[in-house]
Amino acid sequence: MRLVQFHHAEDQGRRVRVGVERGEGMDVVDLKLFDPLAPSTMKELLELGDKGLELAKSALDSGRCVLSRSDVRLLSPVTSPEKVVCVGMNYRDHCLEQNAPIPKEPIVFSKFPSAITGPYDDIILPSESQEVDWEVELAFVIGRRGKNIKEEDALSHVAGFTVANDVSARDWQMRRNGKQWLLGKTFDSFCPLGPALVTTDSVTDPHKLAVRCLVNGDTVQDSSTEQMIFGVEKLVAWVSRFMTLAPGDVFLTGTPPGVGVFRSPPVFLKEGDIVECQIDQIGSIINKVV
Amino acid sequence: MRLVQFHHAEDQGRRVRVGVERGEGMDVVDLKLFDPLAPSTMKELLELGDKGLELAKSALDSGRCVLSRSDVRLLSPVTSPEKVVCVGMNYRDHCLEQNAPIPKEPIVFSKFPSAITGPYDDIILPSESQEVDWEVELAFVIGRRGKNIKEEDALSHVAGFTVANDVSARDWQMRRNGKQWLLGKTFDSFCPLGPALVTTDSVTDPHKLAVRCLVNGDTVQDSSTEQMIFGVEKLVAWVSRFMTLAPGDVFLTGTPPGVGVFRSPPVFLKEGDIVECQIDQIGSIINKVV
Repeated sequence: MRLVQFHHAEDQGRRVRVGVERGEGMDVVDLKLFDPLAPSTMKELLELGDKGLELAKSALDSGRCVLSRSDVRLLSPVTSPEKVVCVGMNYRDHCLEQNAPIPKEPIVFSKFPSAITGPYDDIILPSESQEVDWEVELAFVIGRRGKNIKEEDALSHVAGFTVANDVSARDWQMRRNGKQWLLGKTFDSFCPLGPALVTTDSVTDPHKLAVRCLVNGDTVQDSSTEQMIFGVEKLVAWVSRFMTLAPGDVFLTGTPPGVGVFRSPPVFLKEGDIVECQIDQIGSIINKVV
Repeated sequence: MRLVQFHHAEDQGRRVRVGVERGEGMDVVDLKLFDPLAPSTMKELLELGDKGLELAKSALDSGRCVLSRSDVRLLSPVTSPEKVVCVGMNYRDHCLEQNAPIPKEPIVFSKFPSAITGPYDDIILPSESQEVDWEVELAFVIGRRGKNIKEEDALSHVAGFTVANDVSARDWQMRRNGKQWLLGKTFDSFCPLGPALVTTDSVTDPHKLAVRCLVNGDTVQDSSTEQMIFGVEKLVAWVSRFMTLAPGDVFLTGTPPGVGVFRSPPVFLKEGDIVECQIDQIGSIINKVV
């Protein structure tokens, strides 16, 4: 299933709705039209666990409560998560690109939830940075609470997958803020997410997905999640050694090579650029730089 | 005013309540008993802005709806904030202690909200770390949304102050995770907060407050917020250049000297230790290490 959050034309953007896409870019089944007691946000739906997914499936199978796609504006499939957990240097080919050693443990950093923006929303260039860069990433969302989760149980804690752009101000990430990456990663709008939360059962193998980023139509990143050093199960197990994971928590799993900062000469995003991040079986997010 | 979140004995911990302490350690006025339409969490109260504070004041002044302190268990005054913003190296005397230069800009890092625990709750020693350390810090909480806030307007965005212990696993902070501090700072229970959110109008000068930490009754940190390099207004202005601040966001403003890792020989927390963090006019939090 492709779970989505959206605004409907008749609400004038005042209300978040949760629904199921009938296919990427197709009409959307509204959960609350199907069942007035359905949750109002994706996080609340995920907190219901299997019952939430069953509700979504019943709504989709009913053939009712379908909204025309032209009246729907997709939002990030998750908003206000407790955590946005990011992983650095997690693609073999991205480490090679910068002559960095392959990490022996995941390198974990974070964005604040205020950085999240929708799958087709604008990326806002901050006046504070001259070096804003793209990073297509496979993201996943936690569906079940847990601490010290074993690798073999990890996928049962993952509700599904989505596409992220880990937008990064390289000047702030690499040379300012005492080399703590946070500030360079967490400007408002620096975490486009979407278009849908594709449930785990709908993805054949999260570690065999083509991953691409296009800037103004030119392919700048083109790799596969096969290149990931620490896969989804390992990341869930690792991070849950430190903290309790909660429904709605978003993980960004790292980016393949082809980012702007390691090009010769370096290339950065400028006003008017169109950035498209694509992952097979999941979908595509397209964000204009303003 | 001293705003608090608490569990009441008759709820068996099933419901968070919001109230006003009649003085540190004294009886608590229950906002929802006073007005059934009052918000259910501190974050919701703060989102009401001045109206929320007026409600709390009316409840306190009414002399009604008073719960006996013995039936009240205080929680962290804010739970589930969008952000826990932390500042490193922000006391002159703490920089001197480690022969580090005085930073020219704030160094900003973060904890996840899952690290927050109550003012008298236990600090859980993780088996992953052998170097868990204390850091008493003045914390403040955002009351009003804002981006690019000017220093002269900053205090009007601050709802009030509280006491934090920025518990830190030095091995993970300083030597692991690619030197990104996050993991060492964000184990579950590594952010005791409380006892109350003391509103801004009740603190005479946040930059003239004595700050102390005691471990098993011995004073290990003893300084003043006068030693802060970047004060409250500067921190609000700085961080809001990067991101929109929201009601409930928690800032930890850095720690004075006397932490365990820079002692000779270094000292770390062990099972059974009692850590007390005190700040004048705000109060004291006491956490047992288990």
